Amino acid sequence: MEEMKHNPSQVPGLPLAFHGTVIHSKELNELEILENCFLLVDNSGQIQSLQANVASDQINSMISALGYAPDVFPVKYLQRGQFLCPGFVDTHNHAPQFAQRGVGRGISLLDWLNEVTFAHEAKFADPEYAKGMYTRCVTGFLQQGITTASYYASLHGPATKILADVCFDKGQRALVGKCNMNRNSPDWYRDSSVQDSLHQTREVIQHIQQIDPESTLVKPVITPRFAISCESELLQGLGVIAKEHPELPIQTHFNEARQEIEFTLQLFPEHRTETELYKSFGLLNERSILAHCIYLKEEEIQEIKQLRCGVAHCPISNTTMDAFMVAPIREYLRRGIKVGLGTDSGGGHSASMLEIMRQAFVVSIAQQEATKGQDPALSLAEGFYLATLGGAQVCGLDAKVGNFAVGKEFDALEIHTIEIEGRGVMTPVEEEDTIPVIFEKWVMTGDDRNIAKVYVRGRSVKA
Amino acid sequence: MEEMKHNPSQVPGLPLAFHGTVIHSKELNELEILENCFLLVDNSGQIQSLQANVASDQINSMISALGYAPDVFPVKYLQRGQFLCPGFVDTHNHAPQFAQRGVGRGISLLDWLNEVTFAHEAKFADPEYAKGMYTRCVTGFLQQGITTASYYASLHGPATKILADVCFDKGQRALVGKCNMNRNSPDWYRDSSVQDSLHQTREVIQHIQQIDPESTLVKPVITPRFAISCESELLQGLGVIAKEHPELPIQTHFNEARQEIEFTLQLFPEHRTETELYKSFGLLNERSILAHCIYLKEEEIQEIKQLRCGVAHCPISNTTMDAFMVAPIREYLRRGIKVGLGTDSGGGHSASMLEIMRQAFVVSIAQQEATKGQDPALSLAEGFYLATLGGAQVCGLDAKVGNFAVGKEFDALEIHTIEIEGRGVMTPVEEEDTIPVIFEKWVMTGDDRNIAKVYVRGRSVKA
Repeated sequence: MEEMKHNPSQVPGLPLAFHGTVIHSKELNELEILENCFLLVDNSGQIQSLQANVASDQINSMISALGYAPDVFPVKYLQRGQFLCPGFVDTHNHAPQFAQRGVGRGISLLDWLNEVTFAHEAKFADPEYAKGMYTRCVTGFLQQGITTASYYASLHGPATKILADVCFDKGQRALVGKCNMNRNSPDWYRDSSVQDSLHQTREVIQHIQQIDPESTLVKPVITPRFAISCESELLQGLGVIAKEHPELPIQTHFNEARQEIEFTLQLFPEHRTETELYKSFGLLNERSILAHCIYLKEEEIQEIKQLRCGVAHCPISNTTMDAFMVAPIREYLRRGIKVGLGTDSGGGHSASMLEIMRQAFVVSIAQQEATKGQDPALSLAEGFYLATLGGAQVCGLDAKVGNFAVGKEFDALEIHTIEIEGRGVMTPVEEEDTIPVIFEKWVMTGDDRNIAKVYVRGRSVKA
Repeated sequence: MEEMKHNPSQVPGLPLAFHGTVIHSKELNELEILENCFLLVDNSGQIQSLQANVASDQINSMISALGYAPDVFPVKYLQRGQFLCPGFVDTHNHAPQFAQRGVGRGISLLDWLNEVTFAHEAKFADPEYAKGMYTRCVTGFLQQGITTASYYASLHGPATKILADVCFDKGQRALVGKCNMNRNSPDWYRDSSVQDSLHQTREVIQHIQQIDPESTLVKPVITPRFAISCESELLQGLGVIAKEHPELPIQTHFNEARQEIEFTLQLFPEHRTETELYKSFGLLNERSILAHCIYLKEEEIQEIKQLRCGVAHCPISNTTMDAFMVAPIREYLRRGIKVGLGTDSGGGHSASMLEIMRQAFVVSIAQQEATKGQDPALSLAEGFYLATLGGAQVCGLDAKVGNFAVGKEFDALEIHTIEIEGRGVMTPVEEEDTIPVIFEKWVMTGDDRNIAKVYVRGRSVKA
């Protein structure tokens, strides 16, 4: 993508318009289905016009009115069974674990880190390996319609820069963070010192801000793995960086497992909760992305609400590794806490945000049971919101993406539910099926084969 | 498949041999991985030889020793990342619900039947529609590697015969049953009388035994939908048929939902449990396939064990519709009760037995938590056993299929984990990955794109 490096305000292949069905979230429980919708993306990749119920013969005059030459303007007409929806936002993803997904279930979180994960991540010391595997990772997640991902890289500065380069080149919107971790992991996979960890972090930030100065696609994210991995001095140093860079998000694992919480509080006996702990280092604010959030105390929920932190809900890893852990998502939503979904690749085995949504439904049904109905299960509309606009809020990108509001950038999926019949696995669409039914069939039974095109900033990025 | 009708003892394209990795279950917790394995399928589709650790230069003499001409004998060599495993057995599948999968979550079982399901099933009054949709259904499940399915058809005799014809023609091994249901459904979807229901059932049995007299592939199954749908006289009549046909399996829904159990016991106040009820009509024996089995009382568990009934565990529908219901599978296994897995298409949204296995793991982890570790979660080997040999036992077909014991018929999947890279979604296989790791990656993250070939009775049947 040399051209983007030269002129990021222009996206090749644009402007472009669509006419057909458009589906996106307006609010948590408000899925908007726009039929015969005209959607125009300008040459910078922004949505310039969104208008429902437009007849085909009105399109030319609308194009004229928007200042373009009609007749020759490229308009893509979507057929029955095809629709546009916002790209998925994956709020929690360990890029170097892409090739270990599904391996090593049945052991505890801390054992899994030591026995499976660190060995995998250590391979990213080799830049060539990193380049190859990160290319497969980013390509794989784009194939699944994940237009934005918040990535934990490995601890290696050089490989983290490579991940940012790959995202930028492949056209995936991403937050990319070097993992900070200087203790409680094998000596062959641990930051050599606090100074080195912070130095490499600054270098990565600088590199990313250099390749994409306006954060058109890629942005650094401050990434303490979790407090177990970080000495106080390291957390403190990261807090300083966070203060120096008020534009940057922060991500960490948070109240993920009982064993993890106990160990954390042993390491930091001066704090009663993880919320207190991370807050004390200046790491909790409206840009914080807190993965898991299973076991928060009431006071912690109040605090993260007040601090406007976001929750990355990872229903697959929470229920498939060694425990069935239910994050109280309904409670978070009730209080207006930002919530998005995360694949948690590779603790989560799946790269599909459709599968993540389905497991979010399962977890929410379990919570409905556990609370005797007080916390109703997530609806289809709510699940889809979490996978798109909710995730964008958690990543601090909702002014830019998450739905098709005019002025946002066009991060979108073009879904085909009928033509691929016989090759895909989606429930067949029948003649009488309404658009809501087709949409539900896709969310519950479709896969990446139904995602015909993936657009980020208006650019088609699916291989 | 005219030739099969003429000579079912010969399968076209056979004999055939393989050399490479073969994976199958020997016992519940014993997954056998045979490397450099020589497997020979004779011209009737039976496994004639299974021998691990065979060098390539030994193959010709083994072929000779088995009575075949060497050199010209067709041997398929499997590469690294490829292996054979047994085809999946789906112990619970509603064929006419194929096109409603994923629709109508969040409502109770009985509402879902009335509002969504019966309208779909009623369409199978039209034989042309039945032919088309059953073809898509059987093709779709074969694509997923389901070599044996136990199907509930609709209540229509003619459409049920069509389903049996389609299974036979497409080469899927199947139990096929006309649904018996003469009450508690809309008048437009209900057997017109007990007599008619039984008459049509007999006709379907006759038809299936005529097209496949030796049950090489297709077999009738006695299918009272559940006691709510059947008057006593109907259940009694089905009990008579079951007695007349001791070769036939019986299937029904069993202790699936609290509301369903309550209503059942209101309808049959003379019985204290569903076990008592179905037993009293002669419908519980070693050929019974009991779907769900969530809420059995201790006495019921003892009874179904003694009667040697099988359990069709359907973890997706049990956790995605409106409740999170955990069948105590570990307890059943501990007592030696036969257990298999079911897609429960379309209450279950997925047609993939891989996804069913993954959800079985989730459910078993939840049960592990609920029992504070007394019921340990299912291992990978156990999940795979349930999806193959366990299912074959439940369907009464374990003498024929379920693993690669010599003398069994060759119902198999040829799995390719490497070549499809970039098109599939499976976790990448790395150079250092052992065969158990590759197998785990496939079970946890693969999909139908990894199922390169599907064999039933030695015949390649995937479109």
